[in-house]
Amino acid sequence: MRPITRIGGNAINARVVIHAGIAYVSGIVADDKSADVAGQTKQILGRIDKHLADAGTSKYRLLAATIWLSDMSKKDDLNKVWSAWIDPANPPVRACVGAELSSATTLVEIMVTAAID
Amino acid sequence: MRPITRIGGNAINARVVIHAGIAYVSGIVADDKSADVAGQTKQILGRIDKHLADAGTSKYRLLAATIWLSDMSKKDDLNKVWSAWIDPANPPVRACVGAELSSATTLVEIMVTAAID
Amino acid sequence: MRPITRIGGNAINARVVIHAGIAYVSGIVADDKSADVAGQTKQILGRIDKHLADAGTSKYRLLAATIWLSDMSKKDDLNKVWSAWIDPANPPVRACVGAELSSATTLVEIMVTAAID
Repeated sequence: MRPITRIGGNAINARVVIHAGIAYVSGIVADDKSADVAGQTKQILGRIDKHLADAGTSKYRLLAATIWLSDMSKKDDLNKVWSAWIDPANPPVRACVGAELSSATTLVEIMVTAAID
Repeated sequence: MRPITRIGGNAINARVVIHAGIAYVSGIVADDKSADVAGQTKQILGRIDKHLADAGTSKYRLLAATIWLSDMSKKDDLNKVWSAWIDPANPPVRACVGAELSSATTLVEIMVTAAID
Repeated sequence: MRPITRIGGNAINARVVIHAGIAYVSGIVADDKSADVAGQTKQILGRIDKHLADAGTSKYRLLAATIWLSDMSKKDDLNKVWSAWIDPANPPVRACVGAELSSATTLVEIMVTAAID
């Protein structure tokens, strides 16, 4: 049986799960929710960089991303930060949709998977 | 070519799809929608246990979960049942967001993947 | 390290990502958004057929689908077109939930994964 490695998180969810050379990262939100969409997105992508590094991979090996925005009229603000972060030669597939998030000040949540090997 | 096994469901969706040692389970809702969020979550997790068993795996090998709640103010009710069900040593990655579901009485929907081998 | 192939899209997202014999397709919306839910769904499924073909697979090897509808009261319109497209012997697992989409006229978005080998 192939091993499953679980990194971080709590009894509700792991932060990262590794199985069969794939890293699954939990939906990540910003720590400082006083920031606007651009600021929250920057925080989230920084945390994702760290989680991917913990898993032995990086944004250069992203497979798929799901993005939830509390207000879809702010999608351009998200995309500006996203585009600056993504390696243009290695973008994942993506869906970005509106959703009510965990609190009124949670403006963005991003969940990704990446290849490790 | 690696085989694909499809279990249950109908012509719209399988209940479980198995490929390359991964079990994909459809978004599951409660059968008895007169129940509250806690009650619907219990029903859903019971059905997921059964679907994972059908696939030859269990909640101890969960990889990822997406949870949709029709009312995010009920997230604590969901989490209480979720935490009692999840093996604290083996939590999946997770995202939990608000969404309109199939009917006004559908309060929760949960979609998971798990490793079989 | 197993190769990752990225097809189409732009610097924000690839249209298709291929890794370890799985094709991940981005969330697809209709090109002609003057169409109703049935019409947009037909367009989307036509585009998905093409993307799956580009990846060397087809709807007969679908694993999972996530569908977002801007108005869940139109789910029957979606399902009619979906059921006519899906091979009843090979349905994927599926979740279908409501969400605000990229524009007021974007009524449906569909994201799928399929096995290549």
